[in-house]
Amino acid sequence: MAGNLILASSSPRRRELLEGMGLAFQVAEAQVDENHPGEPKAVVRHLAQLKARDVAQRFPEGAILGADTLVSLDGQALGKPRDLADAARMLRMLSGRWHEVCTGICLISRGQEYMGFEETRVRFAALTDGDIQRYCASGEPMGKAGAYAIQGRAGMYIPEIHGSYSNVVGLPTALTRTMLMAIGYLL
Amino acid sequence: MAGNLILASSSPRRRELLEGMGLAFQVAEAQVDENHPGEPKAVVRHLAQLKARDVAQRFPEGAILGADTLVSLDGQALGKPRDLADAARMLRMLSGRWHEVCTGICLISRGQEYMGFEETRVRFAALTDGDIQRYCASGEPMGKAGAYAIQGRAGMYIPEIHGSYSNVVGLPTALTRTMLMAIGYLL
Repeated sequence: MAGNLILASSSPRRRELLEGMGLAFQVAEAQVDENHPGEPKAVVRHLAQLKARDVAQRFPEGAILGADTLVSLDGQALGKPRDLADAARMLRMLSGRWHEVCTGICLISRGQEYMGFEETRVRFAALTDGDIQRYCASGEPMGKAGAYAIQGRAGMYIPEIHGSYSNVVGLPTALTRTMLMAIGYLL
Repeated sequence: MAGNLILASSSPRRRELLEGMGLAFQVAEAQVDENHPGEPKAVVRHLAQLKARDVAQRFPEGAILGADTLVSLDGQALGKPRDLADAARMLRMLSGRWHEVCTGICLISRGQEYMGFEETRVRFAALTDGDIQRYCASGEPMGKAGAYAIQGRAGMYIPEIHGSYSNVVGLPTALTRTMLMAIGYLL
């Protein structure tokens, strides 16, 4: 049995998803520079590793779960919008198209690092200017990568996904379960 | 503009999904016999129509939204479990396999009927006897078609879906939005 589980993330969505798995855990925010250039699939793995390593230094006995998620379109990451105009710009880019959401996971337990990766394809319906205006006015896009929350009002703009839903929210729970089983933390 | 929107369903999940779309509506439970033999794809359309028609008789001025959802495996519907042993039986059937969730929607407005249909493929991870025991002990399977709730703890057993997520919860919101736009209820 590994030590206490520690989520190396301050994301309320990740905390909720982990709580939804019925797990007991602590939260410790990692201090890492999240501005990292590169290809999204590589960036999320690297940042997940940096986050988990940072927290593992402070909690050497714990099982540390680090995760990083990016929304990307045509291989280019869409970060959190700077303002509502930036949110509208991102939503216009996503409208009527498929894009990708990928998450890297790094689990550190007893000095060993275990890496995981998940990618989900997400299709947006064609949005009218009115849709984008109303969605921006709801305030939901701010603070969200790609300017949307699938678990929020934007769910009605997403007719279809291929892959893990919880990954799009911020933490792929089935992959997390498999990784926690591999280290003996979950039965 | 159509009259008041009325959800012809007593399902709390459908109500929450429709609320999440930011819509104002009333709820009216349809009185229909839900025991209907036949192929799941045909049954959900038929029951959605019966529900919407039943409520439309009482609210002829409203825009009535009827929906019916079935979980099926190899073309056979899995209903709500009778007891925990029945829930365990269904979960053993779903374990490690893909299955389908389909919803029929019937929208009645000003004497016209509009039909919609959505199907989502859902993959379950391989579940151990322990997983099934613990999940049944959580109480979540009871009252749920197919003995699971993707929005609940069972989310961690579902690594992948193809299609609409909200459809698996009980109401495909993107399709509902499109249908409400078609009758002029939504911009």
